[in-house]
Amino acid sequence: MFESAELGHVIDQETFDAAIPALREALLDAQFELQRQARFPVLILINGIEGAGKGETVKLLNEWMDPRIIQVETFDVQTDEELARPPDWRYWRRLPPKGRIGIFFGNWYSQMLNARVQGRIKTARLDQASDAAERMERMLCDEGALIFKFWFHLSKKQMNKRLELLKADPLRSWQVSPFEWGQSRVYDKFVRYGERVLRRTSRDYAPWYVVEGLDANYRSLTVARIILEGLQVALKTRARPKRQPHVAPLVSSFDKVNLLSHLDLGQSLDKDAYRVELATEQARLSRLMSDKRMRRHALVTVFEGNDAAGKGGAIRRVTEALDPRIYRVVQVAAPSEEERAQPYLWRFWRHIPARGKLTIFDRSWYGRVLVERVEGFCSQADWLRAYGEISDFEESLTTHGVVLVKFWLAIDRDTQEQRFREREEIGYKRFKITADDWRNREKWDEYVDAVADMVDRTSNEIAPWTLVEANDKRFARVKVLRTINEALEKAFARN
Amino acid sequence: MFESAELGHVIDQETFDAAIPALREALLDAQFELQRQARFPVLILINGIEGAGKGETVKLLNEWMDPRIIQVETFDVQTDEELARPPDWRYWRRLPPKGRIGIFFGNWYSQMLNARVQGRIKTARLDQASDAAERMERMLCDEGALIFKFWFHLSKKQMNKRLELLKADPLRSWQVSPFEWGQSRVYDKFVRYGERVLRRTSRDYAPWYVVEGLDANYRSLTVARIILEGLQVALKTRARPKRQPHVAPLVSSFDKVNLLSHLDLGQSLDKDAYRVELATEQARLSRLMSDKRMRRHALVTVFEGNDAAGKGGAIRRVTEALDPRIYRVVQVAAPSEEERAQPYLWRFWRHIPARGKLTIFDRSWYGRVLVERVEGFCSQADWLRAYGEISDFEESLTTHGVVLVKFWLAIDRDTQEQRFREREEIGYKRFKITADDWRNREKWDEYVDAVADMVDRTSNEIAPWTLVEANDKRFARVKVLRTINEALEKAFARN
Repeated sequence: MFESAELGHVIDQETFDAAIPALREALLDAQFELQRQARFPVLILINGIEGAGKGETVKLLNEWMDPRIIQVETFDVQTDEELARPPDWRYWRRLPPKGRIGIFFGNWYSQMLNARVQGRIKTARLDQASDAAERMERMLCDEGALIFKFWFHLSKKQMNKRLELLKADPLRSWQVSPFEWGQSRVYDKFVRYGERVLRRTSRDYAPWYVVEGLDANYRSLTVARIILEGLQVALKTRARPKRQPHVAPLVSSFDKVNLLSHLDLGQSLDKDAYRVELATEQARLSRLMSDKRMRRHALVTVFEGNDAAGKGGAIRRVTEALDPRIYRVVQVAAPSEEERAQPYLWRFWRHIPARGKLTIFDRSWYGRVLVERVEGFCSQADWLRAYGEISDFEESLTTHGVVLVKFWLAIDRDTQEQRFREREEIGYKRFKITADDWRNREKWDEYVDAVADMVDRTSNEIAPWTLVEANDKRFARVKVLRTINEALEKAFARN
Repeated sequence: MFESAELGHVIDQETFDAAIPALREALLDAQFELQRQARFPVLILINGIEGAGKGETVKLLNEWMDPRIIQVETFDVQTDEELARPPDWRYWRRLPPKGRIGIFFGNWYSQMLNARVQGRIKTARLDQASDAAERMERMLCDEGALIFKFWFHLSKKQMNKRLELLKADPLRSWQVSPFEWGQSRVYDKFVRYGERVLRRTSRDYAPWYVVEGLDANYRSLTVARIILEGLQVALKTRARPKRQPHVAPLVSSFDKVNLLSHLDLGQSLDKDAYRVELATEQARLSRLMSDKRMRRHALVTVFEGNDAAGKGGAIRRVTEALDPRIYRVVQVAAPSEEERAQPYLWRFWRHIPARGKLTIFDRSWYGRVLVERVEGFCSQADWLRAYGEISDFEESLTTHGVVLVKFWLAIDRDTQEQRFREREEIGYKRFKITADDWRNREKWDEYVDAVADMVDRTSNEIAPWTLVEANDKRFARVKVLRTINEALEKAFARN
């Protein structure tokens, strides 16, 4: 894989100087067009051998392009805000929005390779990490991102020579990391594992480009041309090709027997039992959230359900039990302008709680496979791939200590109608009911299909759905609280 | 000030229970209307004596209102991202947007009072801090915010009794801070300095409400009613009254003699001198930015200037000298939706660099007193008060180690016309020129007035303006670099 990047490519100064003016002009044009269209972001990942000119090349790119629409991000030491959340959070928070270019130094590839070379992880874990990177990049591309991945390469001999030169130059010594590159076996390992990762993550939508780092002219021109040409094509391709989804109908559409139709919605709780159980479960939640073991976890709860199923009331029974400083309720409505300029999961990542805290999502990322599917706000290809993307997202939360509890609050059509009418009649509830609600009701069956598919495809051991029989609000509220408590206890028991 | 909050106010349970349903309904209505109008944010500051029911009251408010539009923020330990920036940054990043309610625990008042009581600062410093808080709040109110400030009070005897009770209750012991409240002299000091701060910061637009904390019914009902009534009035008052600005014309409008007309725009630099000086200044900047003393500072540069004055080119000469990982260029255009939901300085605060780093603003907060003034995008009252607000903002940066360098790049009308024509002719420069540019040119004289006023009112020792003669681009670029270098050296020499 690296052979042709050890051949000693050189571009003489004259050729280089002759090529530059037109190249810079074209790069500026492309960038301006990128900003004007604001249709997709560009992500440039910089990796490779120490001393192979990564920093210098990025610096040159910044000089050649308009620094106002590029952002360079480094990910070395994690801040404490980052350490308190799943590792991917730090990448999400710095993703470039549509129309801009983000250059990621020290990205996920550097993290996994350094960990493997230093022996902190084994190869199986390295593969897991590179698979996760692949899924992340595919998701970004499906959301429209244009990704360039550069591996700057040097032979061992070339590297040692370059490192000596850099160290001797006070103006450039910042380019040398403290990592023990000088040691021969570090180089060998880095190349071996680098090859493995590159092989497993080079894909049509985001291929790796291996660039020989010895000659500055060659290196700069190569990188600039790859970016320019990739960008020009992407700017011209108005509708970027979507992968063809599997076209057979989803299984749950065939009959009307599904998890929802099997619920016993008649379950209820009388007032006295409710009072006792509510108080018990709230006290239990309060205790669990202030338990020392909670310092290793965060809690995320998702509330979805039919309109008027009682999400707000259930959420209030949860928050009642808690110190208001440790939770946040996020009401998910139409995305803001900044959110629309990002992949759809971005607006949920920004609210992922730090350890010890709770975020309650009132509606959630499942809007993609519910309202967006039913109302046709996104294409079939988009919502079909969302099941997998959501699973990846949830795995990256739960792997890092987030306890995730997801509720579907189910009521039947008659109960819904009755509640809609009540809301229209009672003064302070009137704001809860709109023409939209009545219209959504017309699509009841389509929502049933969407919910059944959603549960089938995204309920699993790490993040199970809990279907809550919500015709009786008291029953529903206690079940919600109890489910959260059990999930926390289970998580505490595991470690 | 606290006398009437030591009388032992009590509301019996029956009266309380009778009042609650209507109160809750009205609170929900008001909140919904707040969210619907999305015209202003509500900020609730919670302060006072330990054990006086601050936490419990906030908890109750959250139960009574819709937790989905309230955010409760605590400011206890600063994160390392916060520690790397001026202290106000942490408040700005968590301000509630329009239509939402933010409850700030442990806010600026707690910080300053704790510091004074513990003897970390003297009274003069306490007064400085309370003056700064007053200015901050006035600015927020002028931007539309509705601020409630609550001081929960207890007599010393009441406090000691309450603390004993809280400590004994495992479910509420989290409400007791480790601060040594039990000591009699801590209470005395807290009350003495609290009184001082309340006196100095109680203003018509943001008065303090002192609430006796002994009886939960009294305390809760009082706080809820104050919030409800304040909110209801604000929701009805469509146009909130603006303070009447001083109406005399600004001094610089009387004749055409001003700082700009005194510039010698003919200054230039020949190519050879330029090459040498540019390289020298760039190397010097590179050295300064990697100097150890830079760890105690951050650098913010502001570029304003006539259209086509060469801001972009000057910025590029600065960034060329630097590791792209340490700077960010922020191009200021129309604010995003999230930015429009915040006070206008919010969108600049979010880009304030951490220590050791540089943010370059390509256009800036001065838009308020330039384009917004000239084009009438904001009222005269708004831009007139902006001078003072900007000075406060810049002081809060520079006081905490930010080196601030502000440039106005000046060209004459003929040079501008010539550059506009060039841009229309040269392919890759064409994107730089729009109909707007020609239209702005019509308002040349109005911009001259605005710039002259801006410099008169916001150039001062802590953040001087540098007027850059930019008819000759080479001269301008070197002057920009040299000015930045001198500012850094001066800052390093000071500590």
